[in-house]
Amino acid sequence: MHISVINGPNLNLLGQREPSVYGVETLESIEAKLKKKSITEGVSIEFFQSNSEGALVDQIQKFMKHTNAFLINAGAYTHTSIALRDALLSSSKPYVELHLSNTFAREEFRHKSLLADNAVGLVSGFGSNSYLLAFDGILSYLRNENSK
Amino acid sequence: MHISVINGPNLNLLGQREPSVYGVETLESIEAKLKKKSITEGVSIEFFQSNSEGALVDQIQKFMKHTNAFLINAGAYTHTSIALRDALLSSSKPYVELHLSNTFAREEFRHKSLLADNAVGLVSGFGSNSYLLAFDGILSYLRNENSK
Amino acid sequence: MHISVINGPNLNLLGQREPSVYGVETLESIEAKLKKKSITEGVSIEFFQSNSEGALVDQIQKFMKHTNAFLINAGAYTHTSIALRDALLSSSKPYVELHLSNTFAREEFRHKSLLADNAVGLVSGFGSNSYLLAFDGILSYLRNENSK
Amino acid sequence: MHISVINGPNLNLLGQREPSVYGVETLESIEAKLKKKSITEGVSIEFFQSNSEGALVDQIQKFMKHTNAFLINAGAYTHTSIALRDALLSSSKPYVELHLSNTFAREEFRHKSLLADNAVGLVSGFGSNSYLLAFDGILSYLRNENSK
Amino acid sequence: MHISVINGPNLNLLGQREPSVYGVETLESIEAKLKKKSITEGVSIEFFQSNSEGALVDQIQKFMKHTNAFLINAGAYTHTSIALRDALLSSSKPYVELHLSNTFAREEFRHKSLLADNAVGLVSGFGSNSYLLAFDGILSYLRNENSK
Amino acid sequence: MHISVINGPNLNLLGQREPSVYGVETLESIEAKLKKKSITEGVSIEFFQSNSEGALVDQIQKFMKHTNAFLINAGAYTHTSIALRDALLSSSKPYVELHLSNTFAREEFRHKSLLADNAVGLVSGFGSNSYLLAFDGILSYLRNENSK
Amino acid sequence: MHISVINGPNLNLLGQREPSVYGVETLESIEAKLKKKSITEGVSIEFFQSNSEGALVDQIQKFMKHTNAFLINAGAYTHTSIALRDALLSSSKPYVELHLSNTFAREEFRHKSLLADNAVGLVSGFGSNSYLLAFDGILSYLRNENSK
Amino acid sequence: MHISVINGPNLNLLGQREPSVYGVETLESIEAKLKKKSITEGVSIEFFQSNSEGALVDQIQKFMKHTNAFLINAGAYTHTSIALRDALLSSSKPYVELHLSNTFAREEFRHKSLLADNAVGLVSGFGSNSYLLAFDGILSYLRNENSK
Amino acid sequence: MHISVINGPNLNLLGQREPSVYGVETLESIEAKLKKKSITEGVSIEFFQSNSEGALVDQIQKFMKHTNAFLINAGAYTHTSIALRDALLSSSKPYVELHLSNTFAREEFRHKSLLADNAVGLVSGFGSNSYLLAFDGILSYLRNENSK
Amino acid sequence: MHISVINGPNLNLLGQREPSVYGVETLESIEAKLKKKSITEGVSIEFFQSNSEGALVDQIQKFMKHTNAFLINAGAYTHTSIALRDALLSSSKPYVELHLSNTFAREEFRHKSLLADNAVGLVSGFGSNSYLLAFDGILSYLRNENSK
Amino acid sequence: MHISVINGPNLNLLGQREPSVYGVETLESIEAKLKKKSITEGVSIEFFQSNSEGALVDQIQKFMKHTNAFLINAGAYTHTSIALRDALLSSSKPYVELHLSNTFAREEFRHKSLLADNAVGLVSGFGSNSYLLAFDGILSYLRNENSK
Amino acid sequence: MHISVINGPNLNLLGQREPSVYGVETLESIEAKLKKKSITEGVSIEFFQSNSEGALVDQIQKFMKHTNAFLINAGAYTHTSIALRDALLSSSKPYVELHLSNTFAREEFRHKSLLADNAVGLVSGFGSNSYLLAFDGILSYLRNENSK
Repeated sequence: MHISVINGPNLNLLGQREPSVYGVETLESIEAKLKKKSITEGVSIEFFQSNSEGALVDQIQKFMKHTNAFLINAGAYTHTSIALRDALLSSSKPYVELHLSNTFAREEFRHKSLLADNAVGLVSGFGSNSYLLAFDGILSYLRNENSK
Repeated sequence: MHISVINGPNLNLLGQREPSVYGVETLESIEAKLKKKSITEGVSIEFFQSNSEGALVDQIQKFMKHTNAFLINAGAYTHTSIALRDALLSSSKPYVELHLSNTFAREEFRHKSLLADNAVGLVSGFGSNSYLLAFDGILSYLRNENSK
Repeated sequence: MHISVINGPNLNLLGQREPSVYGVETLESIEAKLKKKSITEGVSIEFFQSNSEGALVDQIQKFMKHTNAFLINAGAYTHTSIALRDALLSSSKPYVELHLSNTFAREEFRHKSLLADNAVGLVSGFGSNSYLLAFDGILSYLRNENSK
Repeated sequence: MHISVINGPNLNLLGQREPSVYGVETLESIEAKLKKKSITEGVSIEFFQSNSEGALVDQIQKFMKHTNAFLINAGAYTHTSIALRDALLSSSKPYVELHLSNTFAREEFRHKSLLADNAVGLVSGFGSNSYLLAFDGILSYLRNENSK
Repeated sequence: MHISVINGPNLNLLGQREPSVYGVETLESIEAKLKKKSITEGVSIEFFQSNSEGALVDQIQKFMKHTNAFLINAGAYTHTSIALRDALLSSSKPYVELHLSNTFAREEFRHKSLLADNAVGLVSGFGSNSYLLAFDGILSYLRNENSK
Repeated sequence: MHISVINGPNLNLLGQREPSVYGVETLESIEAKLKKKSITEGVSIEFFQSNSEGALVDQIQKFMKHTNAFLINAGAYTHTSIALRDALLSSSKPYVELHLSNTFAREEFRHKSLLADNAVGLVSGFGSNSYLLAFDGILSYLRNENSK
Repeated sequence: MHISVINGPNLNLLGQREPSVYGVETLESIEAKLKKKSITEGVSIEFFQSNSEGALVDQIQKFMKHTNAFLINAGAYTHTSIALRDALLSSSKPYVELHLSNTFAREEFRHKSLLADNAVGLVSGFGSNSYLLAFDGILSYLRNENSK
Repeated sequence: MHISVINGPNLNLLGQREPSVYGVETLESIEAKLKKKSITEGVSIEFFQSNSEGALVDQIQKFMKHTNAFLINAGAYTHTSIALRDALLSSSKPYVELHLSNTFAREEFRHKSLLADNAVGLVSGFGSNSYLLAFDGILSYLRNENSK
Repeated sequence: MHISVINGPNLNLLGQREPSVYGVETLESIEAKLKKKSITEGVSIEFFQSNSEGALVDQIQKFMKHTNAFLINAGAYTHTSIALRDALLSSSKPYVELHLSNTFAREEFRHKSLLADNAVGLVSGFGSNSYLLAFDGILSYLRNENSK
Repeated sequence: MHISVINGPNLNLLGQREPSVYGVETLESIEAKLKKKSITEGVSIEFFQSNSEGALVDQIQKFMKHTNAFLINAGAYTHTSIALRDALLSSSKPYVELHLSNTFAREEFRHKSLLADNAVGLVSGFGSNSYLLAFDGILSYLRNENSK
Repeated sequence: MHISVINGPNLNLLGQREPSVYGVETLESIEAKLKKKSITEGVSIEFFQSNSEGALVDQIQKFMKHTNAFLINAGAYTHTSIALRDALLSSSKPYVELHLSNTFAREEFRHKSLLADNAVGLVSGFGSNSYLLAFDGILSYLRNENSK
Repeated sequence: MHISVINGPNLNLLGQREPSVYGVETLESIEAKLKKKSITEGVSIEFFQSNSEGALVDQIQKFMKHTNAFLINAGAYTHTSIALRDALLSSSKPYVELHLSNTFAREEFRHKSLLADNAVGLVSGFGSNSYLLAFDGILSYLRNENSK
């Protein structure tokens, strides 16, 4: 079983960028935690981050050939990118939308997601822990689907 | 440490009601899983379900005197009840909003939550697993707050 | 064959409340007429009225175990209660939405119904006669379905 | 006592057009049933159908000189014709708006009626039975008015 | 002369709930002040608080049989309850809408009242003093009406 | 110089239809007044009324070949007919929009005109006198244009 | 019989300001024409122009004591001044709203008038001739009212 | 194989009406080109134009009995006629929506089509060539469907 | 302690203007009552009324140098004047917004206040008594603030 | 004569991605058909596809130096990219907007195009055939322009 | 060359009013800086401030006779005054809109300007420096226009 | 002191692209002017232009490590890019939004900026001079901040 984790714009700045909103943990540290958890669970995992909408679409197209599911924190593109939505739909793979912060506690334009209606589920607001919860959520989902 | 789980209208029908949307597991079964998990974690837990907005407000007012946090699946009241919002705000306790289904994949009027902006976080779409993920999420949150 | 009639808030005041809008007939008198009609038609019938959204949801959950269909005049809750909508959907039973007055001739907020799109049909504006027409309508519907 | 039944565009296709939405009964068959019912009730009845908004207005102006009330299924013109609304208002005669299908279960633009707020009442969703219920409704209304 | 004071959801928490918004005075203390004032004015007064919309409707239906007017702080239900609006309208008694806080200084959804357009008047923003001003206001109104 | 007067749906009922809104004068009487005025002014005039949008378009297409200008009271079609708008634009002739009643004192949907932005001017609210004022207005306009 | 003509902001610039929109005639010239016409009709007339909303309100309050009707070209204040609306309503005198240009052919914010719904009627788009038509219109209106 | 071409209001004026928008070619010339093309393709073709919404509905009902597909340039009715939409849906035949001009470059109310969502496809902006492209498009579509 | 009372456009007409809406009492009479009450309370008071937005801003700027609070009935400017809002904010003095009539029972455009969100509180609907209640309200507020 | 064909995000997946929506043909196959057609017509043609908005802008800037026109299927960027709109406008070259699917039969956010109002025309819904029709359309357009 | 500087309501309070928003500098000090700069640039300059919309319109009408351009900080009237817009348009002189604060960082109703679309340009957010930048901007603009 | 100038999509075309809107000056020429000015002011300056949203985010992340402030002309991305907004916010550096043209005089979708509310200030409409004014504005801002 294989899970692909996609991170959108400015998430490479984690730990530096507005720590009061996004916490002090870096993306590397989060990925290390996910890596460790995936080893425990016997699942392979891979990561990608880009500030470019096009590069994210490119990579989803590559990952979709071998992955079982996506975890995606699309950051700002959550609210503006139909291209990402289309890439995920094209993959025909289940995905979980996740956010570090609670997007509903922020600006009005962050309340609308172009990815949410096609996602399996949504996890937001738990800081770096959102990744771990989303990982648990998609894993249960995949195992449940497999056991059907 | 104590966690209170609040369930809103029609959630007593779980397992019977529209299984294609809400799954076949009953609320009792979900509560049993949560109970077991809470024992493992050394946390006490309690449950309440009602179809009445007023009874839910009454109970939140009772629980708030001794609980550390709420997990709330307010069902239909998520989208219509300012009274529940006010009760949760009055408690000054952190809470997680959770849903069995992905509310963004359903009718337009389920896309707006009156509880979300004040929540710690949101978990939705993982079926009964949403409760377990929300439990993990609030527990990490509380432990993190305590360790500050 | 069994039909359940649900009445929402303030309908217990019928005959007293704003007679120019709602007529002078009481709810008891309407129920007596329906009872008489149901005996003629060889159908059993039962009634419930409450001012409480939660009590209405509770009762729909009870009635749904044995009834074949609902007639519902949800009054003010027609326009505000997703919980009632969910209760009716959970029952998987056909229902007719009815109103004494023509809701489209009244305030803007009475023009939107949260129940109408899932109903078999809608009868409004005929005063107490709306109940009798709705009864005829659901009966034909049920007999037609049965004869399929 | 005299009742006029007005049918708008495409209703001449009944029985042929999208039977899953509109049923298999033809307009002739419905008119025959209404005719029979009106004889039983000692009421005279007449019918008109046209695909032309102008022809419908013309006919309402003719019928209004002798009729006591209108039953109108204006079809698509329900949602777009202020001219029909004005014709009915000019007649100063009571009318019932009726529909075969439940318009609230269909496209957004069918949820708004330009006729409803001035109607006595509304009957929709009961297939061809909507005509019979509307007939009963207007008859009770007229007899009640007469007995005042 | 008799005046009935209705309090909606979470107002039983006064003095405890978000004191920076609602002040430190309890509902009991406010009721005592009103009681004292009503004795001075030679007016009888009664109080009711509930977190349940249905219970509030029930009680208004009871009070309306003997009262001359209502003072109502419907709290969160101000913005969501057509049922309360209907109950007050059914009573045919004058009422004053009141709020402790200035609702226009709060969330957008608190700017719309379903009760305001039928009220005699509105008093908001004076903390517990809003009750005393509303009492003075309705008393003058009633005396003025009586002297007509 | 030639002027064409176009009247839309239900205007043939003038004098009979809702006299409190539209006055007691008939369309024939108004046309006689306009005829008399046009003779005085040395202008030829012609009239057309139809309840049919298509017939109105047909006639505008005929009149446009010889007329200098239109006076149009499109009645209900003012607010719904892009086809009439297109016919008038196609004619490349100046026109005045007129109404018997003050449309801004009536239903919301009568506040929007699909003809107004391309008209020379607008006259409304003066009852049958609106026709005479509109006639004076277009005549001055034409003479002014000619004298340029 | 006495008629008062009110002109709002920037109308003192007539003849100088954007002649392509407003024409080359000055306000003095228009007033002279109206004066002449009023003498012919045996009606007294008076004029007021100001760029100040407050001064216009003041003057309407003065004129209302002796005038029979107002002609008002409120210019930009047509679309923004509730105070002018209130002043005209306070006068309990009939008034005609008029404009030199066709406001519906201009910016969106000029399509909404705060004066129109309470006016007798509306004349717009005929340049300086709008004043003469409006004068004729109000005169007929007043004579018609007097003859009742 | 048979194709029916429907033209809505004012299209009979082609070549005369606003040539800068609609070009100088007449409808007859366009129909001749289509006729020629259909002969080449071995397809029979027929044409209908009317300014009347009702006549267009009537004709679609007639054509639907023998045609394989519609090409429709509904002109102004594209944006206002649910009756045309219903007639096309009732036919259960594929259709292409076409326009001479690019409707998105024109008034806001021409951006919304009531026919587009059920069409096979849309061709607009190519002047008279839009008809030929739409013909090619529907032909390929039909041949492709037949070959399935 | 000093209180300044500001009255906006048309309030000088009180007692004359639409008595059914605003009552028969004049502004002078109201000011006399307030004067008397202020003497009893040992508070100095001053009054200003103008129909001009600019004059009201000028006067608020003058009063703000010595006053402790404002009572403001801005009339029509309540709904249109950001300049008054800015003047009150610039003063850094508390103010109460008051209205004679219940603005929520009137036109839609009177439901939005540009002053309300920064006010201490709001009193409306009690006729001339609104001034006395607002006076009581601001006095309690000031004494409470002083005693902090 | 030279034509440039631009394809936006996810169109490289054609043939793999959601075949029920986009068909089974690959982009290579479509380009081959266009190439063949262009040779027949004696026109040179070139192609570009990218998932990156910026790369598409870059390429349009390059192509604009030598091309006569663009065919653009901007996919998801049709609805979100003002940058593409600006690039096309900057080129001062005519372009046709095209889509494989009928965008009006899909999600609401696909009904708005940021490119359409400046395009020569629009072709959508014909699957891969949309490219060929668009090619024919632009070719006729260019030849027509040249022959002027 | 001559430049006129217009200041709207409450700007006479600069230095006193909410210094955290508007800074501590007075209008006199700003005008002195501008005066000095204009002398350096060999340009004459004049200033006007008023709290009255009408007085501002009056003054623009006076200045327009001799000035080359306006700098205008209309304060609150930026968002509400069509009269000021019309006065500036009537002048046919270029103008720059300026603001001390960044209006987009403030209340929603300050995001809409009625002056901006006709301005040469906009400068906002630089405190008193906005005046100097706007002066530089209009000067370059005028010199550039002159040198054409 | 160091200032970074960011230019968004299509700004590399300056001087070629729609000169009537954007002027004839190239970006290189503007950068040379800024360079010269920065030398005079003793400030270092650097420039970046890209058509790619992702590349702009990347570069802002690089510049933010050493720069004191940004001048940003985000072109089309001003209205669509939350990612750019987030990058600028992450930098915690002050920035000025600037535009060559007056965006409020153009299409509706250019009236909304996703960058403006967090900017120090805004300069638009002065052509290439907007850069110089923005440079002066940010320099004064920085010097003022430093001197605090």
